[in-house]
Amino acid sequence: MTYPFQLIPMATLKENGVAANSWKIHEHLGTHTDAPNHFIENQKSLDQIALEDLIVPVVVIDISDKASKNRDAELTVDDIKTFESQYGKIPDHSCVMMYSGWEAHLKDPMFVGLDSQQVKHYPGFSSAAIQFLLTQRSIAGIGVDDLSIDPGIDEKYTGHKMLFAAGKWAVECVANLSNIPKTGATIIVGAPKVGKATGGFSRIIAVW
Amino acid sequence: MTYPFQLIPMATLKENGVAANSWKIHEHLGTHTDAPNHFIENQKSLDQIALEDLIVPVVVIDISDKASKNRDAELTVDDIKTFESQYGKIPDHSCVMMYSGWEAHLKDPMFVGLDSQQVKHYPGFSSAAIQFLLTQRSIAGIGVDDLSIDPGIDEKYTGHKMLFAAGKWAVECVANLSNIPKTGATIIVGAPKVGKATGGFSRIIAVW
Ligand SMILES: [Mn+2]
Ligand SMILES: [Mn+2]
Repeated sequence: MTYPFQLIPMATLKENGVAANSWKIHEHLGTHTDAPNHFIENQKSLDQIALEDLIVPVVVIDISDKASKNRDAELTVDDIKTFESQYGKIPDHSCVMMYSGWEAHLKDPMFVGLDSQQVKHYPGFSSAAIQFLLTQRSIAGIGVDDLSIDPGIDEKYTGHKMLFAAGKWAVECVANLSNIPKTGATIIVGAPKVGKATGGFSRIIAVW
Repeated sequence: MTYPFQLIPMATLKENGVAANSWKIHEHLGTHTDAPNHFIENQKSLDQIALEDLIVPVVVIDISDKASKNRDAELTVDDIKTFESQYGKIPDHSCVMMYSGWEAHLKDPMFVGLDSQQVKHYPGFSSAAIQFLLTQRSIAGIGVDDLSIDPGIDEKYTGHKMLFAAGKWAVECVANLSNIPKTGATIIVGAPKVGKATGGFSRIIAVW
């Protein structure tokens, strides 16, 4: 159903005196934001996410150690509690990022990790962890350095549905999470303001 | 050569349990950034603009009064000097925005202003003003609330070429410039990091 990004020349400096390209694109390509209407009827579309929910504190929970040993690794409630014991409570109205190390696999088959049954294998948030963040903490959204906030083996997208039912956003395929502070930075999610969109590629910037 | 934005459903909640859309798009649609390679051979593409050049001070020079009387109005060197006498010198490494009031015409033919000879009519920076900014001030880029940094009547895109030869960027079709301070704000240009792109739609945010 999806397809790769394509850049198709429309005009070139040599022939037209101006260069410009067409893009063949869909809403869930590359580093992108998921809006709540991606899985939930009548929920917010990308343009309806409030700007104040897109510039928020960010924390990074690193599960790359266990993920390097298990491609189905999950970010669990225990991982959140261990993080908090070291870095303090997750700030209100923040974005919680999972760093799994998966960005290193971007260009190899392990990024999707399809097995012989066409089941995907990559790390994600456990649904209990998402439930915990939604009910015991105050978050604006969550993010991951791989393809999806749910682990690849969850073909029901449980976490997506819980998160979006609560009106929160997700960011996926986020790069450079190992280069920002674990806590204390602010993230700016440059989600394009496109009506009806269920998502869209986004320039995501951390400042600290 | 150009075409309007189209959002084409790929999947719907009712039929597929997930909603997602395809976008038919080109690099110079809606609120977008122009990269120097749009008009100049071997200049920077969109992904090559340094992040530190995309988060910069912003000033807004309001020429809406004269533009309301003359759709070919230009932002001139005198307008810059008048602005500076009131708000102080344009800060180094900043983005200079022209506010012409044209955003109000977004949905009527006046936005492009084609005459019977197919010549366009809308306000823009004079090429002398761009030259002044490039040589007498230090800028990161410039922007406008209408279609192009050059006035519609300039079919040679003189200002584009001068600006891009100097490796600076432009932002076009920028909304809400009348709602931010004339000076003192910081702009975050969320230009998508797409290789070879000559531009691309961008979430542009001012904070102050
Ligand atoms: Mn997605
Ligand atoms: Mn353009």
